[in-house]
Amino acid sequence: MEVYLDNSATTRCSKRVQETVLRTMDSDYGNPSSLHKKGIQAEAYVKDAAFKIAKTLKAAEKEILFTSGGTESNNLALMGAALANRRTGRRLITTQTEHASVLNVMAFLEEAGFEVLYLPVDKDGIILLDALREAVNEETILVSVMHVNNEIGAVQPIEQAAAAVHEKNPKALFHTDAVQSYGKLQIRPKKMGIDLLSVSGHKIHGPKGVGFLYIKDGTKIRPLMLGGGQQAGMRSGTLNVPGIAGMGEAAAEAYEDFEAKISHLYSLKERLIHQVTKTEGITVNGKTGRDSAPHIVSLAVSGVRSEVLLHALEEHGIYVSAGSACSSNKHTVSHTLEAIHLEPALLDSAVRFSFCADTSLEDIDYAAGKLAEIVPVLRRYARR
Amino acid sequence: MEVYLDNSATTRCSKRVQETVLRTMDSDYGNPSSLHKKGIQAEAYVKDAAFKIAKTLKAAEKEILFTSGGTESNNLALMGAALANRRTGRRLITTQTEHASVLNVMAFLEEAGFEVLYLPVDKDGIILLDALREAVNEETILVSVMHVNNEIGAVQPIEQAAAAVHEKNPKALFHTDAVQSYGKLQIRPKKMGIDLLSVSGHKIHGPKGVGFLYIKDGTKIRPLMLGGGQQAGMRSGTLNVPGIAGMGEAAAEAYEDFEAKISHLYSLKERLIHQVTKTEGITVNGKTGRDSAPHIVSLAVSGVRSEVLLHALEEHGIYVSAGSACSSNKHTVSHTLEAIHLEPALLDSAVRFSFCADTSLEDIDYAAGKLAEIVPVLRRYARR
Repeated sequence: MEVYLDNSATTRCSKRVQETVLRTMDSDYGNPSSLHKKGIQAEAYVKDAAFKIAKTLKAAEKEILFTSGGTESNNLALMGAALANRRTGRRLITTQTEHASVLNVMAFLEEAGFEVLYLPVDKDGIILLDALREAVNEETILVSVMHVNNEIGAVQPIEQAAAAVHEKNPKALFHTDAVQSYGKLQIRPKKMGIDLLSVSGHKIHGPKGVGFLYIKDGTKIRPLMLGGGQQAGMRSGTLNVPGIAGMGEAAAEAYEDFEAKISHLYSLKERLIHQVTKTEGITVNGKTGRDSAPHIVSLAVSGVRSEVLLHALEEHGIYVSAGSACSSNKHTVSHTLEAIHLEPALLDSAVRFSFCADTSLEDIDYAAGKLAEIVPVLRRYARR
Repeated sequence: MEVYLDNSATTRCSKRVQETVLRTMDSDYGNPSSLHKKGIQAEAYVKDAAFKIAKTLKAAEKEILFTSGGTESNNLALMGAALANRRTGRRLITTQTEHASVLNVMAFLEEAGFEVLYLPVDKDGIILLDALREAVNEETILVSVMHVNNEIGAVQPIEQAAAAVHEKNPKALFHTDAVQSYGKLQIRPKKMGIDLLSVSGHKIHGPKGVGFLYIKDGTKIRPLMLGGGQQAGMRSGTLNVPGIAGMGEAAAEAYEDFEAKISHLYSLKERLIHQVTKTEGITVNGKTGRDSAPHIVSLAVSGVRSEVLLHALEEHGIYVSAGSACSSNKHTVSHTLEAIHLEPALLDSAVRFSFCADTSLEDIDYAAGKLAEIVPVLRRYARR
């Protein structure tokens, strides 16, 4: 039996996505920049994808900029906003629990002369709105707060955060890394006060190597990639038609039967938590239930090293993650778990289970059952 | 009948590439950063692609850095080299006939305080080695010369150019945009003195949205994309496994039966030129024969606007390009045709035919026949 519970690392492309990618690699393979029919046909796929994605956000097509993925979207949002607005101010604000593609760009901008404030979070990984309000000043040009944390599934109060920021400084841009929330939560950038929003294709059963950045109409940012002037000069390079069309399909699919799928995910989450916490010394990091992300469960398994547990589960065909998979195999202590002040003994004992709509209750039962079997054995080993 | 003669704009993915992409979207969909079997399996695809590509260049796997395409490769090479070496000097050298993704980055770097020299070319689009030698000084940190020009197929004497540069300044980095030459010419970066070399997947029957930058071992450049630290920190972001694996397949395929395929391309080129130049007022821009690129023919068709000709050919199922397709639909006068001092009356009359190994002699005969039919008609129209 194979039970893939690492959907926050990446997902399998859906059949519809696969078909779309295949068609645009084979018969409909044109370059959207070409003036002839093959080019126009390719361009139609790109427009259709922009339409489908914009619809899920109640945004305009022209507000969707295609990128090579979540990392590029975050890099472009932060660098692009900082460079375009550096004459307005120098303060950037973010949180301690962001993805590396936000934190490392912030560190680079700090070196380049910007001031960066890293806001703390509470024990559930949630930012403190008062601290945010206090941090925003006249000098603030950008605030970046992740929507759903990739390690523990904490959901930030994005709408309130954006309101707090804009109340203090209407000109400050509000960015959110929505890589883990898009397709799992309803997002309305305009209503929620979001100026910039990053999404990745491969987290929603779309292709790897593609993502988008929602850029609110009128927002001033500078492009990172210069060249042929594609996408109104904001992102040069031949448009990745199969990737973009595939992501458009995935986006549409993610929001079809949305409530049913999300309810299913929450029931998987509840079931997993209910079963695994029967074993002593297994606790959940962060919140549970409807005010947490539906698809992520982070467990602290006392007395067992996460990597050991990961490989033990793997032997039973169960694939989970030790911390976040986005950090390229490096085994370092999670900055998110430190930020929520997880007790030091547990920092090395976190495993992340992440589901998708295709995950079944049977999958959960199998995984929970194996976990209950394995943990006592591993603990005996560890004690020797 | 459909005859696609716009392979320098983009190509159809080969069947082998399609199969590889499909497999890595479906059963083998893991994230190479994941520690479990699914991740390791995905990582193996990436390693295999690096191996295959390195082999075609007689390079080492670790010298291949995966990017989102030719534009990113060029941006990274230029920005990365300029920023990493800005304390050594401020002079950058390139030519007047580069791709927009080189010229626009150079313009950006000029604004950022670098000095950029744009070398002229002769009537065939070839740089003058003496002028290059003269331009290189102690202050020179990077020279970028395109291998094969995308508009007229001019082949630059890269090995001699790199030698001239390194003779004058051994520390200066030599970059070549090989997007149009890779898969069509044999390239040996080490032997040829190339430090940085840009390639795009979709020009060689590989996927769109993926490319690579060859970075000679020990070359100091700065990353553009920051984040999870993938690819030894040189290019963060979840590896685009389907794109990379597909490009690896395409690279291997491009250099299989290489001599036969290239001979075939040259015979297509010869045949097309032979036939179309029978019509009065049709001439070839740049060189022909074995010292030009095998797959590109740029024609000047006097008295006919290129866009009009493009659409007239399109009605017969023949797809060609007016100038270069890489410039996002913009209709501007080609900087390459200006640089080779094409007579002004012909600047707006250039059409590019570009072949691939699957193009047949029949395709060429059909296209040449239609061209001979159409041109006199269009000229009569134009005269009215």
